[in-house]
Amino acid sequence: MTPSPFAPAELPEPPMVAGVRLATAEAGIKYRGRTDVLLMAFDEGTTVAGTFTTSRCPSAPVEWCRMQLPRGTARALLVNSGNANAFTGKKGRAATQLSAELAAKALGIAPEDVFLASTGVIGEPLPAERFGTVMDAAAARLAPSGWAAAARAIMTTDTFPKAESRTVTLSGGSVTITGIAKGAGMIAPDMATMLSFIATDAAVDAPTLQAMLSAGVSKSFNKITIDSDTSTSDTVLAFATGASGAAVAAGSADAALFAEALDSLLLSLAHWVTKDGEGCTKFVAITVEGAESDASAGKIAKSIADSPLVKTAIAGEDANWGRIVMAVGKAGEPADRDRLAIWFDHVRVAVEGERDPDYSEAAASEVMKKPEIAIRVDLGLGSGRDTVWTCDLTKEYVAINGDYRS
Amino acid sequence: MTPSPFAPAELPEPPMVAGVRLATAEAGIKYRGRTDVLLMAFDEGTTVAGTFTTSRCPSAPVEWCRMQLPRGTARALLVNSGNANAFTGKKGRAATQLSAELAAKALGIAPEDVFLASTGVIGEPLPAERFGTVMDAAAARLAPSGWAAAARAIMTTDTFPKAESRTVTLSGGSVTITGIAKGAGMIAPDMATMLSFIATDAAVDAPTLQAMLSAGVSKSFNKITIDSDTSTSDTVLAFATGASGAAVAAGSADAALFAEALDSLLLSLAHWVTKDGEGCTKFVAITVEGAESDASAGKIAKSIADSPLVKTAIAGEDANWGRIVMAVGKAGEPADRDRLAIWFDHVRVAVEGERDPDYSEAAASEVMKKPEIAIRVDLGLGSGRDTVWTCDLTKEYVAINGDYRS
Repeated sequence: MTPSPFAPAELPEPPMVAGVRLATAEAGIKYRGRTDVLLMAFDEGTTVAGTFTTSRCPSAPVEWCRMQLPRGTARALLVNSGNANAFTGKKGRAATQLSAELAAKALGIAPEDVFLASTGVIGEPLPAERFGTVMDAAAARLAPSGWAAAARAIMTTDTFPKAESRTVTLSGGSVTITGIAKGAGMIAPDMATMLSFIATDAAVDAPTLQAMLSAGVSKSFNKITIDSDTSTSDTVLAFATGASGAAVAAGSADAALFAEALDSLLLSLAHWVTKDGEGCTKFVAITVEGAESDASAGKIAKSIADSPLVKTAIAGEDANWGRIVMAVGKAGEPADRDRLAIWFDHVRVAVEGERDPDYSEAAASEVMKKPEIAIRVDLGLGSGRDTVWTCDLTKEYVAINGDYRS
Repeated sequence: MTPSPFAPAELPEPPMVAGVRLATAEAGIKYRGRTDVLLMAFDEGTTVAGTFTTSRCPSAPVEWCRMQLPRGTARALLVNSGNANAFTGKKGRAATQLSAELAAKALGIAPEDVFLASTGVIGEPLPAERFGTVMDAAAARLAPSGWAAAARAIMTTDTFPKAESRTVTLSGGSVTITGIAKGAGMIAPDMATMLSFIATDAAVDAPTLQAMLSAGVSKSFNKITIDSDTSTSDTVLAFATGASGAAVAAGSADAALFAEALDSLLLSLAHWVTKDGEGCTKFVAITVEGAESDASAGKIAKSIADSPLVKTAIAGEDANWGRIVMAVGKAGEPADRDRLAIWFDHVRVAVEGERDPDYSEAAASEVMKKPEIAIRVDLGLGSGRDTVWTCDLTKEYVAINGDYRS
C-alpha cells in the first residue's frame, strides 16, 4: 500500500499517561508478522466515557461497551485488528464475553471492567480463544510507555500510525492527555472502523468526561467524511485515571482548559484519519457560512464533502465550482442560488449566483494544485456556519476497495 | 469515450407520434461536428405534464418550465446540449426568454407555449442568440419522423442514444407513446442532467397526464442512482397531442392501460440511463423487503445503492455482503441486525445476522461475474418493499470526472 502523501516521516513516542500501562501482541487473528492486539490496563478508580457508531447494525464489541459504559469505570481495554466481530450473531456475543474474561483473568479484575474494540473483516466469527495464547504474556509486559506501538497494533488499511498528546496546566497540577486513532475514517467496513482511544491522568468524573468527549467528538470525528459510509464499529473511548492528582470539576476554569486541550487533540486525530483516507491525495476543509443555522450549514457542508463529483474534481485539480452549486442544491436545506458566493482558498470563483466577473482560471488552478485546500461557500441567508473535512476520491480508492478479486 | 457494455448495436427508428414533428440542428453551442439542438413542434391542443429536479439551485430552463406548466398546454420544445444554463443568474433568465422567443417566432406561436431544457456545462452563460441562426431552417425541416436523431442531439456524456416506445389499444383506438432520455443519470452536473421527453397521440387532459407522469417517474427515474448527485437540471416532460382521437379519461379502464404502458416506458428509459452511467460495467437491482414500510425499504435500498463501498465491491466482482450490512446499518431506518438475510441473485449469503451456514463462495462469485446482478435484503420486520437500480463505481468514473486537467 502506497503511504498517504500526508504520512509523517515517523511517529515520535507520545508522552506517557500516569495510571495507564500498555502492551501489544501478535495473536495472528488475520495478519502475520505484525502486532494485532492492544492491551491497556488502568489504575483503580479510572473513569470512562465513550461515543459509538450510529449504525443500526453495530458490532458485538460496540454492544459490549454500551452495556458496560453506564457504570462509568474501567480497568482495561482490549483491541484487536483484522476482524471486526461485526454481523457475527450469537457467536459475536460469545466472543466478546470470552475476550473480556481472558483479559480479566490475566489482570485479576472483573470482566465487566474490560472495554473491547475490534476492527477488520465483517461477518467472520472472531476466534477470541486466540487471545488466550497471548494474554498472560501481554499482561506481564504491560508498561507505561508504548503508545506508538499501540497506534501501530490497531491499524488496518491505515498507511501510518496516528497519535497526539496535549499537556495542560491546571490549578491542581499538570496533566497529560494522549490519544491514538485508526481509520481510514468511515471508509472501510471491510477493514472496518474508525477507532480512537484517549487517556488522561487528570481526575474527571465519568459524567463530566462523557460530556466533554461527546462535545469534542461532535466537532471533530463527526465532522469528517471520507466516503459517506458509516462503519458498524466506530468507537471513541476516553479514560481518566486521576493519577496526576489534578482534578477537573465540571464547570470550573480547569474544565474549560481541559476541554480545550481535549478538543484540540480530537480534532488533530480526526484530521490525521482524513489525511490517511483510502487513496487520499488532497485534504479539504469545507466551510459553509451565511446559512439559516449552524445545523443547516453543517448539512450543506456534508453534502459537498460527500459528493463523488466534487471529490473527483478535487482529485483532478479541477476548480469545478459548478459541482459545488450542485451539491448545495441537493442538500435539501434553504439556499438561494442567486446569493451564492464560492471561494477556493482566497480565490472567489462565483458571486451572486454567477461566475465571478473577475474570475481567474489561472489563480483557481494554482489553488487546486496544493495538497491542502479550503473551500468556502457563503449562502448569504443568515449567520449559520460549520466546517467539515474530507479528502478527494481517486482511482486508488476504487482500486483499494474493488480490486480484491481482480 | 468507451461505449457502455450495455450499449445496443443500434437504435431502431422509434414509432412516430401523430401531432408531433421534430428537427435537429447544429448550433455549435459547445460541440463541433454533431447536432446539439432539438426542436419539437406539437399540434394545437397538446397538453403537457412535467417533473423537475428537487435541487434548491435549479437551472434557468427548469424555472422557465415550472412557470409555464400550470397552463397545461404546449406547442413546442427546444432542447440544447453542451450548456446547462444553470447558475447563470440574470443572464440565464434572459437566455431562456430569448430562446423561447426565437422558437416562437420561427413557429408562429407564443413564447410561453415553448418548453425549454438545457444540458451541459454549469456556470457558463448560454449564447442563446446562436439558436437564431438555425431556428428558421430547423422549423422548415420539421417532420413526423426523427426520434432517433432527437435522442442523439440531446446526448452529453452518454455513450448511446436512448429511446423507447409503446403501443396501447384503447377503447377509442390505438395510441402510441414514444420517449427519449439522456443521462448519465444524476451523475454529471458538469455535463449536467437527466432529461427525458415523452409524447403520445392519446388525448389526455393535463391534470390526468401530470398524475400519471408523477406516479410513473416516482417508480422509475426516482428509483435510479448512479452517484447520488442530483443535477440542477433534471427534467421529464410528457406531451399528449390527442391526434389519434383516442381519449384517456381519468379513472377509466383506458387510463389504467395507458398508465401501465407509460410506467413500462419510463422504467425502460430509466434502466437505459443507469446502464449508461459513467464508467458503468454492472447493472444492479437492489430490493429491500421485510421493512416496516415501503418508504423505509426505499431509503435502505438507496443507502445500499449509493454506498461507494458497495459499488466498488460490485465493480471488483466481490460478493462483499458485509458492506451491504454496513449500508443497511447507516440508513437510519428500523433494522434488526440479527434478522437480516441477504441474497446475490439466488445465492443466500447471510441469514439471521450471520454468514449463511451453507454459504458457497464459488456460487456467490459466479453471480458477481454477471453483467446484471440482483441483490435482495430481507429485514424480517414487516411487509415493506422497494427496489432501486444502480450501476457500479469504477476507476473509469473517477477518470471521466477527475481527469479533465491531468
